[in-house]
Amino acid sequence: MPAEVRIVEVGPRDGLQNEKAIIPAADKIELIDRLSATGLRSIEATSFVSPKWVPQLADAAEVFAGIRKAPGVSYPVLVPNLQGYERARAVGASEVAVFTAASEAFNRRNINASIDESIERFLPVLERAREDGVKVRGYVSTVLGCPYQGGVPLADVVRVARRLHEMGCYEISLGDTIGIGTPGAARTMLRAVAAELPMTALAVHFHDTRGQALANILACLEEGVAVVDAAISGTGGCPYAPGASGNVATEDVVYMLHGLGIRTGVDLGRLIETGRWLAAKLGRSSGSKVAQAGV
Amino acid sequence: MPAEVRIVEVGPRDGLQNEKAIIPAADKIELIDRLSATGLRSIEATSFVSPKWVPQLADAAEVFAGIRKAPGVSYPVLVPNLQGYERARAVGASEVAVFTAASEAFNRRNINASIDESIERFLPVLERAREDGVKVRGYVSTVLGCPYQGGVPLADVVRVARRLHEMGCYEISLGDTIGIGTPGAARTMLRAVAAELPMTALAVHFHDTRGQALANILACLEEGVAVVDAAISGTGGCPYAPGASGNVATEDVVYMLHGLGIRTGVDLGRLIETGRWLAAKLGRSSGSKVAQAGV
Repeated sequence: MPAEVRIVEVGPRDGLQNEKAIIPAADKIELIDRLSATGLRSIEATSFVSPKWVPQLADAAEVFAGIRKAPGVSYPVLVPNLQGYERARAVGASEVAVFTAASEAFNRRNINASIDESIERFLPVLERAREDGVKVRGYVSTVLGCPYQGGVPLADVVRVARRLHEMGCYEISLGDTIGIGTPGAARTMLRAVAAELPMTALAVHFHDTRGQALANILACLEEGVAVVDAAISGTGGCPYAPGASGNVATEDVVYMLHGLGIRTGVDLGRLIETGRWLAAKLGRSSGSKVAQAGV
Repeated sequence: MPAEVRIVEVGPRDGLQNEKAIIPAADKIELIDRLSATGLRSIEATSFVSPKWVPQLADAAEVFAGIRKAPGVSYPVLVPNLQGYERARAVGASEVAVFTAASEAFNRRNINASIDESIERFLPVLERAREDGVKVRGYVSTVLGCPYQGGVPLADVVRVARRLHEMGCYEISLGDTIGIGTPGAARTMLRAVAAELPMTALAVHFHDTRGQALANILACLEEGVAVVDAAISGTGGCPYAPGASGNVATEDVVYMLHGLGIRTGVDLGRLIETGRWLAAKLGRSSGSKVAQAGV
């Protein structure tokens, strides 16, 4: 297992975009600033997709411009295309993220494109980013299953991950978007991708929809992965299972990692405080069991 | 990892004893009968402790007498002493369970006895059980931490487990009562006990207080343990952390095991139905994420 893990905090983006309560920009800014004060070094700040798709993040430019850029912390933002990239750059983003799915059916249903077509759409973003010296992170979703087609062939996961890496993504986040996977499947999937790409270029992204996220992360740590996505307070949900849990809670991941003797650089106490503060803003109880029980 | 795992369903006892809503005996009987119809082969049915300590289980004799004894299913009941043993035997119990803690402070606070004194109290139960041909299961609680003394020396866990085994317990359930442990600690603890006792005589018992239960179980499966305690619908709570999660939910454990290709003999669909039925009786949402999200 790695001696150190970098957490990529995705709460302000992947978490909030699936929360119903609309959070004012000032609170989002405070959230991100609180998160950077916990010692997190990667915080996905917002998304420059169309406000029509994600009303919660219509304030992307205001939020990004408003956060205190802490030294040593990166603030990637999601961009769906060159327009989004340009909006992000206009407010000073120096890292972006692009996203696709390993499932043909998921891409067809969501963006009416094949996997290959969806990836081609990123080419202009990746070219421009290279010219601008902007780092690009790539998300591959539905790596362990798809709400439309069910199983997703491993070969498709590997192909998409490799293509994003070839196109210049420095890190590929492998996401079990619907939280369907169990640890054996997670391990097999990661091994298959790591057979073709360096483990240092891979991250894992689990949703706790069926309670499996920490066990899946453990299996992936055993395989050597050292970057883990998580969302403060377990924010987000699952559009395919209303009422179900969202992203794995950062607090619970950090608790496990510290228990395993793995360094994260994160102050768990401050993280828990931040998660409770956010849960209050969202008007719901925390999705982190560590936050509910205390350390 | 084992090819097959036996689940010991502890919901009707360990789960319910920490639930506030008092469940009528008829519903407890229906719960246990529903559980045996799911394919579970070990169901801890109730506890013959003093009703003063555990009002929820004051109906132990009525419940035990009322359940349909399904062929091939064992129904252990908790007994604190010879009196409890005799009450259990009077209604036909053929398997009992005794319990102690690996923490000196926990035993002192709970029963005003040292670990060794608490174990000595079981001697008459174990002697009588041997004469009667009654199987005895032994619980060791606080194996990864104690709410009073904090850390618990591994040597104490090993000593208590060995002593219960020597006294005739066919199986020792190692319990992280307060749900404080993480997978590395769980693995180290299990290894230490398994160095002195056969793995086939060991079970693991995790509470999901800090969300770590499935990850801990995974680590223990990797060490070869093949008996796992769990409670339907994640019933129970933590007396030391009000509002926190209770026992790991059987539904979530079975989902993980089946995903790992490990047989349990349990019909997950019926289990989920039973958990939802129970949650409705308890007037709260299910503590199982699999039940919340669906398979």
